[in-house]
Amino acid sequence: MPELRRDPIIGRWVIIATERTKRPNAYNVRREPQGSTPCPFCPGNEDKTPNEIMAYGGKREANKPGWKVRVVPNKYPALAIEGDLHRTGEDLFDRMDGLGAHEIVIETDEHAQSFEDLDDDRARDVARAWRERILDLRKDPRFEYILVFKNSGAAAGASIQHAHSQLIATPMIPIRVKQKMRGAEDYYEQRGRSIFAEMVRVEKQKKERVVEENDDFIALMPFAARFPFETWIFPKNMRSHFETIEDGQCLTLGRILKSILGRMNKVLDFPPYNFLIHNAPLRSAPLSFFSWHIELMPKLVQTAGFEWGTGFYINPIPPEEAAKHLREV
Amino acid sequence: MPELRRDPIIGRWVIIATERTKRPNAYNVRREPQGSTPCPFCPGNEDKTPNEIMAYGGKREANKPGWKVRVVPNKYPALAIEGDLHRTGEDLFDRMDGLGAHEIVIETDEHAQSFEDLDDDRARDVARAWRERILDLRKDPRFEYILVFKNSGAAAGASIQHAHSQLIATPMIPIRVKQKMRGAEDYYEQRGRSIFAEMVRVEKQKKERVVEENDDFIALMPFAARFPFETWIFPKNMRSHFETIEDGQCLTLGRILKSILGRMNKVLDFPPYNFLIHNAPLRSAPLSFFSWHIELMPKLVQTAGFEWGTGFYINPIPPEEAAKHLREV
Repeated sequence: MPELRRDPIIGRWVIIATERTKRPNAYNVRREPQGSTPCPFCPGNEDKTPNEIMAYGGKREANKPGWKVRVVPNKYPALAIEGDLHRTGEDLFDRMDGLGAHEIVIETDEHAQSFEDLDDDRARDVARAWRERILDLRKDPRFEYILVFKNSGAAAGASIQHAHSQLIATPMIPIRVKQKMRGAEDYYEQRGRSIFAEMVRVEKQKKERVVEENDDFIALMPFAARFPFETWIFPKNMRSHFETIEDGQCLTLGRILKSILGRMNKVLDFPPYNFLIHNAPLRSAPLSFFSWHIELMPKLVQTAGFEWGTGFYINPIPPEEAAKHLREV
Repeated sequence: MPELRRDPIIGRWVIIATERTKRPNAYNVRREPQGSTPCPFCPGNEDKTPNEIMAYGGKREANKPGWKVRVVPNKYPALAIEGDLHRTGEDLFDRMDGLGAHEIVIETDEHAQSFEDLDDDRARDVARAWRERILDLRKDPRFEYILVFKNSGAAAGASIQHAHSQLIATPMIPIRVKQKMRGAEDYYEQRGRSIFAEMVRVEKQKKERVVEENDDFIALMPFAARFPFETWIFPKNMRSHFETIEDGQCLTLGRILKSILGRMNKVLDFPPYNFLIHNAPLRSAPLSFFSWHIELMPKLVQTAGFEWGTGFYINPIPPEEAAKHLREV
């Protein structure tokens, strides 16, 4: 019989198919090849992007080759950096100017490299770039939140194959983040414990949903996973704000991310995927009830009418089984 | 500059790209051909599905050819019909048995026909089948909600191409429905008016987002459309419960649905799509603050990291422009 499971943080129900589970190789979704080179993110094409904001890679002239990780404004931003919010309303309808920031972290100067192929230092520098950009953008008082995320593969929404991640700063706290914060705060008020710490403690005891851990991080599949092979990564030293991360943790974060993606490549044959960092809002003080964490979701199934209409998700493989597949590879 | 727009019912914010709008033919997503015949939904293959629940099409033996519209249980149900809820909990985790009903409405006996190709009578009978199945399933006290929906095309989550829609009965009211009901109820309490009636009144005045209307229905694009070409269909004689629909309205509903889908085929070159009926919960009395309605969404863009992480949507074409394209075709 299928099982309904409730996410303990935000209370979302998920339908887990416990019989007729799909085999990992039954999804048949593969990341397309890296495409033609040179692309606008390749070295030598620095003039194809807006002027760079920062770069790692040693002494060089800005917007010239020689970088290893490079951050640029998105040429086609979802939100624009100029102006004020300018709120207006008419009849039933409220609108405001689409103010924000939208930046691209080009993760490597080698067109054919995926994130999981980066060497440890470069993967660390990608995480450092996320931190540096948040620390800089938070100085702008118009922004309330910054989401770091990555789309890899066309089926996961990527339009350029050259490895990159993105940051979007928004002038309001997104609803998904609010829901998670509220759930975590309620739990803390009722029990005096962080639900994130509690979750990691229970999962470490049970072991069945843990994929991997290192000194600083643990990767596990959530009890009420929405998607097949959905994996969350928590820091062991829990902090509400990602931007407090130290260089050493940037290194171990890069390592565990690369390792999980490598496992997914083996089990799922290079799936398209999304990951994102759920972080605390920019303007909040350090929060004991919240911990930043990563949600990583291979894009194997389509969200369809039932999911859009209800907000329920149907996950065709129990997280315990999916975790076992990733652990054993 | 992009624009942030707030959905007046549930308060969801959407980013509308008002510059660099995508042309309608820029999406390059097409419904795949209808595939090989005969399929399990074709006449002559009645033994490939579970025994039928009902059918339209004149006198015949059950589970034999001769039907025009046929309703069967889903052979691979997301939720199972047997048993009780059987709620259990352990540590942080709540689960219950995946109880529910999952039925398929096979919309035609002709494998190659799409919903928009059906003649008026058959499209009416599809809507009548939705109504009859809700009226029957609501007798089962274990169910709280029924969603009628349709996935068309593999990119929209359909695994079989033969035209069909689905019903899923759930043992709880889905979160998306709760949010919409709450928004509508708040509006009614504050202003004494139905937000749905208000929305239709304002849109009829403005005209720019209206696609089409007939005697009984109006099709419009919502102010804060999440997806390109997202279209909502409202009954003019608003009722909270779809199952109160009369045969005459089943006919005009079929007509407007076929017409909108036909317009989308012309403008968007046969896009994959989802539609769903947002209906009031089974156990509620008739509600003056709520009206059942249809959400219809061509599947043209991928939901990616930003959308999953924030709950914001990025819509690359303003609904005013999309509505103009559909009106003018």
